[in-house]
Amino acid sequence: MSDPRPIGVFDSGVGGLTVLREIIRRAPGESTIYLGDNARAPYGIRPDEEVLSFSTQSLDALVERDVKALVVACNTSTAVGLLSFRRRYDLPVLGVIRPGAAAASLATRNRRVGVIATPATIRSHAYFNAIKDENPAVEVYEHATPALVPLVEAGQLTGPTAEATVAEALAPLIGGRDADGESIFPLPPGASIDTLLLGCTHYPLLGPILARLAGEGVAIVDSATATASALVELLKVNGLERGDPGVGSGHVQLTTGDPARFADLAGRLFGTDFPTVESVELGALAR
Amino acid sequence: MSDPRPIGVFDSGVGGLTVLREIIRRAPGESTIYLGDNARAPYGIRPDEEVLSFSTQSLDALVERDVKALVVACNTSTAVGLLSFRRRYDLPVLGVIRPGAAAASLATRNRRVGVIATPATIRSHAYFNAIKDENPAVEVYEHATPALVPLVEAGQLTGPTAEATVAEALAPLIGGRDADGESIFPLPPGASIDTLLLGCTHYPLLGPILARLAGEGVAIVDSATATASALVELLKVNGLERGDPGVGSGHVQLTTGDPARFADLAGRLFGTDFPTVESVELGALAR
Repeated sequence: MSDPRPIGVFDSGVGGLTVLREIIRRAPGESTIYLGDNARAPYGIRPDEEVLSFSTQSLDALVERDVKALVVACNTSTAVGLLSFRRRYDLPVLGVIRPGAAAASLATRNRRVGVIATPATIRSHAYFNAIKDENPAVEVYEHATPALVPLVEAGQLTGPTAEATVAEALAPLIGGRDADGESIFPLPPGASIDTLLLGCTHYPLLGPILARLAGEGVAIVDSATATASALVELLKVNGLERGDPGVGSGHVQLTTGDPARFADLAGRLFGTDFPTVESVELGALAR
Repeated sequence: MSDPRPIGVFDSGVGGLTVLREIIRRAPGESTIYLGDNARAPYGIRPDEEVLSFSTQSLDALVERDVKALVVACNTSTAVGLLSFRRRYDLPVLGVIRPGAAAASLATRNRRVGVIATPATIRSHAYFNAIKDENPAVEVYEHATPALVPLVEAGQLTGPTAEATVAEALAPLIGGRDADGESIFPLPPGASIDTLLLGCTHYPLLGPILARLAGEGVAIVDSATATASALVELLKVNGLERGDPGVGSGHVQLTTGDPARFADLAGRLFGTDFPTVESVELGALAR
């Protein structure tokens, strides 16, 4: 069996390109269509209903382009809507949360995992539950870090602003205290996490800063790599692989925002990996 | 490491004894405390809030008895409340849905799985989602069968009433039609499931009837065995095993209902497996 149709990958913005990059690395023969809803990013600070309706519009647009599988490369959308998407589409729909949770539960040795993500993802406790599903004895400390996506979407991956913003976001989880000196995480005295799960596909782009601030004793796990591996396995197990590796595969990136701005940002974040950017119109685009 | 504390196992009634039986078979050195909320069974027809509050009362009673892990051997409770229980207790909490879903997704060859469960479990789509998590390309056909738990709780595992009730409950999934000849399941014409997941711990006791009605081409998967295996793995991976296998382990069954009635029913369903039945009072027992 083989299936030449492209894989659809969706994110609120450019963060999901970390997942797309890993997919293309692992399955170079596959075609892909990426849709970034940049006009309405970031999703993580929006109410659940908006995340659900914006995501559904975006995924509808990918399904109209005859994809064979959908990757929801947005943690917020996965947390809020994966069940809904799976009921709506007669296609395999893969989220980023479970693969990331599986990787984190395998990485921890002291059974204490910290999760940073957008407020919507944290609110859903989707990572908490997914990690507990992998190993119910792992303690999970969740922390919302709303300042990081805007940082990435602005292309600020280095420099004093990025450093300060990441340090502030990470402080409670690493230090166990918030800005007022109050302990936020219910970590036992003297205990600490040994694994930090980046519960947002934008965050791997801040990897170097995060790793330095977290320190050598903390393993950094991100879901992009794990999700790409899970997708490759999904295609193989279900006979959905393209068949002719490397021959005539194509990749196109769609954005609801300004294509020139998307191309510029993707270039700054990923170099020359994603050259083909086109504009897409979603029906009745609400903001 | 070793941990002599008992394992707590909870169900709305006696159905969870199918899970307990498998746990004792696989981990004969462990002690167990089972709690059946028989006074308020069945849960599957109750609103979510009642399922949640009744389950929490029951699990609180097990935690007060210093268990080292909790098994929610009730699909309805797992579907409605697993996340809530995991946030409430500082203990590993294992549900029955994920292990059952994993077994079903491995069993199917044509990627069409039928799930029968209580209305509350089906309403949650917890099995749908858990099977999709295992393999997003598997089609899941869910069907609520509220008549089966009362049958088991009444000890009616054979005979004309049991046969007729099971046949009626299973008809839409096997035949693709309900009593009025309307197709309930969105199975493609000519297609059929090759795996039937028993999404309720009571149902394995109706196994012989279910297997005969489903036919030879349909694999019957139940969550009791899978959950017991998952628990044994959980204890091992996290250093929670008892340590002295077979020496002084004990098993007690608690019921919110009439102990004599529980013992009689357990005897009819399981023979002499569960001799020690005691009454338990839960705080402010609402019905």
